[in-house]
Amino acid sequence: MTSRIDVKVRLLHDEEIAMGPGKADLLEAIAATGSISAAARSMNMSYRRAWLLVDVMNRTFSAPLVVGAAGGHHGGGAGVTDTGRAVLARFRAMEAASAAAVATHGAALAAMLRPDDN
Amino acid sequence: MTSRIDVKVRLLHDEEIAMGPGKADLLEAIAATGSISAAARSMNMSYRRAWLLVDVMNRTFSAPLVVGAAGGHHGGGAGVTDTGRAVLARFRAMEAASAAAVATHGAALAAMLRPDDN
Repeated sequence: MTSRIDVKVRLLHDEEIAMGPGKADLLEAIAATGSISAAARSMNMSYRRAWLLVDVMNRTFSAPLVVGAAGGHHGGGAGVTDTGRAVLARFRAMEAASAAAVATHGAALAAMLRPDDN
Repeated sequence: MTSRIDVKVRLLHDEEIAMGPGKADLLEAIAATGSISAAARSMNMSYRRAWLLVDVMNRTFSAPLVVGAAGGHHGGGAGVTDTGRAVLARFRAMEAASAAAVATHGAALAAMLRPDDN
């Protein structure tokens, strides 16, 4: 029987998703690759979509999470700021806390599922 | 500034969502109204969709969560079983636990957002 608890945490600001699993993954990829375009490629995401996600993050937080994002030619390099690293760390900690919190209830629920026959 | 943490918890069984926020709401509506069709109407959901959600729940758990669901004519009445109530209570407890677990990190993240100007 393959069962699991899926927990998805997002920080909403007005009607926008300021931070969520996809944006956190993108931040990590930018930190790892040093550019938005390389990060996008590594996530199988268009440069345009990655740029839009970065734009939302940079607008919704009090300081930019990514710098060097303005260059029009997909190159130029980009980095995650100290604020970006702090937000990312907090978000991952929040995800871990929520995952830990559901473990007991999740196991009890999973035990109520029908066992696989095959 | 209107910000909030959104936590979504789901129990996956193989490739199906055995329990999630929508199914939990539907269970509550069936318990409250005594029928799938009335529950669907109260949620602005088609009868067909409600029936499909009930079918997934009844197939994935070891005992049916809803009984009286087989009547073809949208009427007939339906009720939530003891198993259904136990699953629902566990799921709501799991949601509450995850929401409580993210509160501190969520407040710290929200404090890093840009204040609204208007």
